[in-house]
Amino acid sequence: MADCCRHKQRSAEEIKALKTRLNKIEGQIRGINKMIDDDRYCVDVLMQVSSVQSALNAFNKVLLSSHIRSCVVDDIKNGNEDAVDELCELLQKTMK
Amino acid sequence: MADCCRHKQRSAEEIKALKTRLNKIEGQIRGINKMIDDDRYCVDVLMQVSSVQSALNAFNKVLLSSHIRSCVVDDIKNGNEDAVDELCELLQKTMK
Amino acid sequence: MADCCRHKQRSAEEIKALKTRLNKIEGQIRGINKMIDDDRYCVDVLMQVSSVQSALNAFNKVLLSSHIRSCVVDDIKNGNEDAVDELCELLQKTMK
Amino acid sequence: MADCCRHKQRSAEEIKALKTRLNKIEGQIRGINKMIDDDRYCVDVLMQVSSVQSALNAFNKVLLSSHIRSCVVDDIKNGNEDAVDELCELLQKTMK
Repeated sequence: MADCCRHKQRSAEEIKALKTRLNKIEGQIRGINKMIDDDRYCVDVLMQVSSVQSALNAFNKVLLSSHIRSCVVDDIKNGNEDAVDELCELLQKTMK
Repeated sequence: MADCCRHKQRSAEEIKALKTRLNKIEGQIRGINKMIDDDRYCVDVLMQVSSVQSALNAFNKVLLSSHIRSCVVDDIKNGNEDAVDELCELLQKTMK
Repeated sequence: MADCCRHKQRSAEEIKALKTRLNKIEGQIRGINKMIDDDRYCVDVLMQVSSVQSALNAFNKVLLSSHIRSCVVDDIKNGNEDAVDELCELLQKTMK
Repeated sequence: MADCCRHKQRSAEEIKALKTRLNKIEGQIRGINKMIDDDRYCVDVLMQVSSVQSALNAFNKVLLSSHIRSCVVDDIKNGNEDAVDELCELLQKTMK
């Protein structure tokens, strides 16, 4: 692991759950790509895009909750509130 | 092509543009998967997820505009307003 | 009515339905304002904000569907596709 | 103040800032109501709705950040992680 990046140790179980979600999303994107190859009707493609957006959103919530429950809570307990600033910035950027 | 599915003929140019977007999104998803393998920090992963959501949203808008300008307009001109019902239903389901 | 603005004739029933929704939303906003006066807990206020966002979103979808079914369809039938350009622009601006 | 509700003491400055935002949003909703009375064109109404959604979203972010920086941080420091569970639940419900 490079020194340039921040890291987080996750449990094998959490890693597996996150990767399962991402693999499924990657498969859905490939499926949409194939729908374009097959000249499929726009509305049917758009419904699949909507399904991927929901799956990404679910991934986002799982990872965000895990982040708050571990990194943010630990930092606060250690008297370091940088994680709080960073969380608020992240929510500013990502909440629509 | 199976008879079960509705189709739409797109120009070679449009197909290429749509597939370029999807290939990029697929690469981004693989990149996030690798970030999980590399134990990367949650906030850095979440920023990448946000970037994929924007890219999917842009894909969605491009395809939706093309759908309205071609399928929906053509159907209305042909006196068939099914595409209008379907568009309204699609927007009901997908607008958050 | 001023000449500067574009207009649309809506049925008395549609106007009533739209205004009922807006009056309810205005009441909800006043309710949130009162919650701030009463020093109510953040999470309880935020849940109310979420409820207003859903109500506004529902208003948006009702008006957008009505717009597509009337203005957009009529313009296309009259050989004027300006409403199509405008609809696509609106969706570009408002879909998140 | 009733015993039934949870409360939070906010500074006079924060209360004023929150109420200024809410008063502006309430005025915008009344403005949209007037646009319906005046038979204004759908797209012009929809652009105003989009502007209110942005204003509500900004209010939401301001209050959420304040909540995290005060209630959530204080609870964690006091060894009470209920606010963490509640924050995660709130984000689950409200992030689209």
